[in-house]
Amino acid sequence: MRAVPGYLVTERGAPPRRGDVPRRALRPDDLAVRVTHCGVCHTDLHSRDGDGPFPLVPGHEFVGEVSAVGEEVTGFAVGDAVAVGNIVDSCGTCAMCRAGQENFCREFPTLTYGGTDRRDGSPTYGGYAAEYVVRERFAYHRPAHLDPAGVAPLLCAGATVWEPLRRWSAGPGTTVGVVGLGGLGHLAVRLARALGAEVTVFTTSAGKADDARRLGAHHVVDSTDAPAMAAQADRIDLVLDCAPVSHDLAPYLRTVALDGTLCALGHLGPVTVETMDLLLARRSLASAGSAGRPGTQEMLDFCGRHGIVADVEVLPSEEVATAFDRLARNDVRYRFVLDLSDLG
Amino acid sequence: MRAVPGYLVTERGAPPRRGDVPRRALRPDDLAVRVTHCGVCHTDLHSRDGDGPFPLVPGHEFVGEVSAVGEEVTGFAVGDAVAVGNIVDSCGTCAMCRAGQENFCREFPTLTYGGTDRRDGSPTYGGYAAEYVVRERFAYHRPAHLDPAGVAPLLCAGATVWEPLRRWSAGPGTTVGVVGLGGLGHLAVRLARALGAEVTVFTTSAGKADDARRLGAHHVVDSTDAPAMAAQADRIDLVLDCAPVSHDLAPYLRTVALDGTLCALGHLGPVTVETMDLLLARRSLASAGSAGRPGTQEMLDFCGRHGIVADVEVLPSEEVATAFDRLARNDVRYRFVLDLSDLG
Repeated sequence: MRAVPGYLVTERGAPPRRGDVPRRALRPDDLAVRVTHCGVCHTDLHSRDGDGPFPLVPGHEFVGEVSAVGEEVTGFAVGDAVAVGNIVDSCGTCAMCRAGQENFCREFPTLTYGGTDRRDGSPTYGGYAAEYVVRERFAYHRPAHLDPAGVAPLLCAGATVWEPLRRWSAGPGTTVGVVGLGGLGHLAVRLARALGAEVTVFTTSAGKADDARRLGAHHVVDSTDAPAMAAQADRIDLVLDCAPVSHDLAPYLRTVALDGTLCALGHLGPVTVETMDLLLARRSLASAGSAGRPGTQEMLDFCGRHGIVADVEVLPSEEVATAFDRLARNDVRYRFVLDLSDLG
Repeated sequence: MRAVPGYLVTERGAPPRRGDVPRRALRPDDLAVRVTHCGVCHTDLHSRDGDGPFPLVPGHEFVGEVSAVGEEVTGFAVGDAVAVGNIVDSCGTCAMCRAGQENFCREFPTLTYGGTDRRDGSPTYGGYAAEYVVRERFAYHRPAHLDPAGVAPLLCAGATVWEPLRRWSAGPGTTVGVVGLGGLGHLAVRLARALGAEVTVFTTSAGKADDARRLGAHHVVDSTDAPAMAAQADRIDLVLDCAPVSHDLAPYLRTVALDGTLCALGHLGPVTVETMDLLLARRSLASAGSAGRPGTQEMLDFCGRHGIVADVEVLPSEEVATAFDRLARNDVRYRFVLDLSDLG
């Protein structure tokens, strides 16, 4: 066990403060990541305000370089550009793991922070630190030619929107709707556009229309404009609902085309829908979250080929409290990223 | 306008009584059907107890022979084995009609009874009658070698379960679950089995287990047995929920496998689901009802090749009130069919 500099939430609701983060000695299949950039996800805020256990080290979308490898590591070498997402282990044997959906592991995947290591039972501490130690199996090759700060949010927000885009075959000849232009939504627009789909953004913020078009949207619809919404009826093959809070799904569901799907990516809790809204175009309501290993690497490779990164505002790591405060007010376009290279 | 013998509900809640049913003179694209058998659907009961308008002639799954054809009819000749389902016209130009899903027509399809003719605004009267007049486009060729009484329920119950089986690709290597072994459910079992799927029936009636196996189910699960239900977690690619009344979908949703679908076929009204039950295996909740022209004919052809008919109890047409009473008590395995050949 070693200690590396990082940021810890020592009690519920407290801002992350500089301190020592424990890291395990490398196991044979581990690699160490010198963390340079870590995205600030809504989950980090929720964890700060959650039930702990504390201390907590947030951060589950980060990038850096490999700084050491265990003796059995074969896929990475010291100096490689690397990235880590929100899960760092899983059982590897259940049907979900066998299908490459370790995010749905039936023994529950080990979370990058706030989780429990499967081998020694120690708590996992996240990427707001100078270094992270991760099983090779859950480290990803990141495209080194892309801005690493912009890559960091791909590991959570990007992977989360990528898998449903692929699952529901977004591409040429299909239409994709994106509800909510935030961390997830802005990447959904870029990825859907790059996949070749016709993209419509639904937003309640008129001020985001230009931004939506800049990101690649073909159409922008004010979702508070009932006639405009009615004109979208039956039009969209896949709606990715990225709004993070509970809301009425019906207006968006009715935009879904025959045999199409509305996939909710926020944790909306219980939702009520009128079966007639599903029946009358044989629509589906789905939900998804996070991503498996194959989907995550596929997304990174795709972003590398298409030059896709997140729109980020990079802050020095010591401004983490500012990032939290502004994120809580939704005052970011579209993701804060902490520069942790100064810690190393 | 002519009158043919049939059964009419003259006021809300009254049993259908023998009387004269108006039929239009044949238009150029019409054919007349001498009705021999008509299934008794739950919708017929609901219509009897509904808001009218009365008189009402129920019946929207019937078979017979072509007794006359209009001058422009090209696909049928007098004497042909014919069948009619629950819709008899649609706009023909909306996206749904163009996709062969006239059941979802955006101008609303013309119902076989209780509807309004698109050309002259007259009310439509159903198949509890010696004869029906229908636009050729909404008549189907039925396999003449199959028992016509057993074919009649295919036109509504069969078509309704067929389309989701096809939409979600039930077949070899897939698993299908059927909730509720009634008019729809028993045909879902037969069709799914014939398509090559592995079939599990979920039932609350222990007495139906043997019947489920006879119909083709590989497995029968008592849905009131919580451990047995838990053992089905993540196992079923497509659950067809044929229960006709509002119920908790969660236990069935949790049996759905990765990327699978629960499709509700009853008119369940508003339903509430926990998004986490969708998210944790990227499951979909869908609903469907009725069928389009291509799906209906495809289903009939498939049943002809596989010798599939409904399990029916045939009653003389004058016993229609008995059929209604017993159906209201769910006292039928699995569909009443009225023999209307005596009227002709």
